[in-house]
Amino acid sequence: MSTTDTSPSAHSGASESWSRTHFRVDRRSASYCRVTFDHPPINTITATTVAELAELVGLIEQDPDLNVVVFDSANPDFYLAHYDVENDPSRTAALGVGPTGMHAWLDLLVRLSRAPVVSIASIRGRARGSGSEFVLACDLRFASRENTLLGQFEVGTGVVPGGGPMARLSRLVGRGRALEILLVADDLDGPRAEQYGYVNRAIADDQLDTEIEAIASRLARFDHEAIARTKSYVDQVTLPPDSEFPPALADFFEMLTRPAQQAQSARLRELGLNTDSDLERFLGRRVVESIPDA
Amino acid sequence: MSTTDTSPSAHSGASESWSRTHFRVDRRSASYCRVTFDHPPINTITATTVAELAELVGLIEQDPDLNVVVFDSANPDFYLAHYDVENDPSRTAALGVGPTGMHAWLDLLVRLSRAPVVSIASIRGRARGSGSEFVLACDLRFASRENTLLGQFEVGTGVVPGGGPMARLSRLVGRGRALEILLVADDLDGPRAEQYGYVNRAIADDQLDTEIEAIASRLARFDHEAIARTKSYVDQVTLPPDSEFPPALADFFEMLTRPAQQAQSARLRELGLNTDSDLERFLGRRVVESIPDA
Amino acid sequence: MSTTDTSPSAHSGASESWSRTHFRVDRRSASYCRVTFDHPPINTITATTVAELAELVGLIEQDPDLNVVVFDSANPDFYLAHYDVENDPSRTAALGVGPTGMHAWLDLLVRLSRAPVVSIASIRGRARGSGSEFVLACDLRFASRENTLLGQFEVGTGVVPGGGPMARLSRLVGRGRALEILLVADDLDGPRAEQYGYVNRAIADDQLDTEIEAIASRLARFDHEAIARTKSYVDQVTLPPDSEFPPALADFFEMLTRPAQQAQSARLRELGLNTDSDLERFLGRRVVESIPDA
Repeated sequence: MSTTDTSPSAHSGASESWSRTHFRVDRRSASYCRVTFDHPPINTITATTVAELAELVGLIEQDPDLNVVVFDSANPDFYLAHYDVENDPSRTAALGVGPTGMHAWLDLLVRLSRAPVVSIASIRGRARGSGSEFVLACDLRFASRENTLLGQFEVGTGVVPGGGPMARLSRLVGRGRALEILLVADDLDGPRAEQYGYVNRAIADDQLDTEIEAIASRLARFDHEAIARTKSYVDQVTLPPDSEFPPALADFFEMLTRPAQQAQSARLRELGLNTDSDLERFLGRRVVESIPDA
Repeated sequence: MSTTDTSPSAHSGASESWSRTHFRVDRRSASYCRVTFDHPPINTITATTVAELAELVGLIEQDPDLNVVVFDSANPDFYLAHYDVENDPSRTAALGVGPTGMHAWLDLLVRLSRAPVVSIASIRGRARGSGSEFVLACDLRFASRENTLLGQFEVGTGVVPGGGPMARLSRLVGRGRALEILLVADDLDGPRAEQYGYVNRAIADDQLDTEIEAIASRLARFDHEAIARTKSYVDQVTLPPDSEFPPALADFFEMLTRPAQQAQSARLRELGLNTDSDLERFLGRRVVESIPDA
Repeated sequence: MSTTDTSPSAHSGASESWSRTHFRVDRRSASYCRVTFDHPPINTITATTVAELAELVGLIEQDPDLNVVVFDSANPDFYLAHYDVENDPSRTAALGVGPTGMHAWLDLLVRLSRAPVVSIASIRGRARGSGSEFVLACDLRFASRENTLLGQFEVGTGVVPGGGPMARLSRLVGRGRALEILLVADDLDGPRAEQYGYVNRAIADDQLDTEIEAIASRLARFDHEAIARTKSYVDQVTLPPDSEFPPALADFFEMLTRPAQQAQSARLRELGLNTDSDLERFLGRRVVESIPDA
């Protein structure tokens, strides 16, 4: 993993760090990298985040020394809020397709899942919509027991989730729980997410960082080839075929332009969407406020 | 959803209700319907139940306004006991096939699973055999923590379960737990059913109705198209192919006619099958009493 | 199930027992058999164990009366430690292939999974590596809540697990938890194994034997054909295709011969591998001690 603003010492094992607009990267050793989301106020995902993550995934894929990447957040209340079109949907449309031929967002998630590296989501705070889609594309997910809210709120706003959670949750938690998460579209806290298998497990908040560090440090010492080949065998059984992803994203884009959904989006912004608001803190419960009375 | 005994106001949003022999239907709004099983003494499923449910599923499928159907029971001790041939197996045989080309029972379960509507089993009391098969065909399953017994007792009576639980449980709870449920053939209480993923979760009995009402009311307000399309994507990944169902039902019918199983069925009726008996209350444990000593 | 050292009374229902080098067999009745691993000091699996288990599986497959086989251990601290090449890898290589055309180890696991008999792993103590692979090939897994450690430590030693856990765990516990078990390669205790679905459930140690006996005795009374056909339907949905197994075993053998892994194996033996040592008791945690400092 190299980048234009790192020194040649990058592969010496010495710690180094570099930043992008929406996250910073701490290369703790040749085999261990930590990525910290930091996009105030609530870590929304925008076209910029997607472009930067796509670049990062490209570096991860090509790095022969890297064993493990941990993704955490600088904001204890928000891991990755959800997607924000930033009043300019054309920027999202302009992201184009990635090497898989799929839209940049789907492309980077699929490539992260297949990379010969263990990706770990260390979740503290909220991860909804595309934030949830990101953690579902990671290999391992650990959540703060006291301070996590996960969910796919899209159906509550009248659209289909676009970044693959039907494909991933169906395989991860089974039909009944996947349908509940996707259709009831409410938040799951840490214990519920653990019970449903949405995350590997919930960990007491004051132990989360220590446990993730222990897991990552352990993985960093293992043989790269043993990790890569073993993961590849699991990939063959568990990863959705690429063909499952694009139709739902096309539905998402189409449904988002319908007048009713545009009105609902506007109402959500009035209520505080994309800001550090009560709406964002309790979005799973409060999303219904954006629905006009029948 | 319309029926001959409802007024044209059915779609006005006003509550209405109608009844069949084995359940009543309360149309709470255009988008929300509640079905309450009420077939004393223990909510057995008979040829009549199947015919009435098949009609109901047809109405559900064609209703463009309906988002959610909750199935509950008027009897707190029995949700749906199991199938009862009513001393007249010819009535069950005469049910014929449904639109999918499968036997009416398989047909209605498959069509309910695929309907563009969220079906919710609100389980209080016992649901075994075909009662369990019905809840497995629903999209979401919630069970009273204190007052639920779920099971597939068929193997204990010397036959293969016929209504698809091998196909559905294998995908829902994984091989090990599916084999235990099906082969050990004992009852699971609410906490165990939750732990195994047989139900989405167990809810304290005095909270069950309130929680289900909150979930259903929420779903009733959502966009129908968003629900239907999102569910359809999950269906594509999680529903068994139709071809898995008929062979096991054929096995069930064939094995049921064997002399040993006929004798065992007779013994179960002597012990209180199909009545509100201690046998029915503890059928999972007591089914072995119908087996002759080796 | 018959063997050369059993009397013709084997099928009379009377209890009988016979022994092999690494386990003893207690035929409690025509329909119920118990196999107890007893290979001091820590129940390693060797070429001898594989040959003896292969013979046993052949007997199980052909026995028309047998309903249930319970596998337990004479050593409360070790169920099946893991594979031991006994300083003679040629013996393992010489095991050849079984009737499925696969290596003897894969062959016996696959055939046990498909046999028309319920196989139950009653786990007390440690089961790692091929010990874990064995329990994963059983139909039902129950673990002592207080005294179980399960794991696939292979990646920690620089090799791919060879006996199918990628295929089986991926389907049993889902992608995220399977990747954690296989890549982090640490031990899971009873409660964690239950939570992840690695075992059906954890049972209080002082209740384990009683509960397993109740389950096995119950299964022993059931109709053989009902068990066999019902299991077969679950097999069709849940068993991995045979083609998934050989490539990982080939990887295992290849990687094991690399100098780095040979050195690591030697270091593990120095630390106490294959003996009743602290290393073996805490192998999941201590395996990293065999990795040279970077």
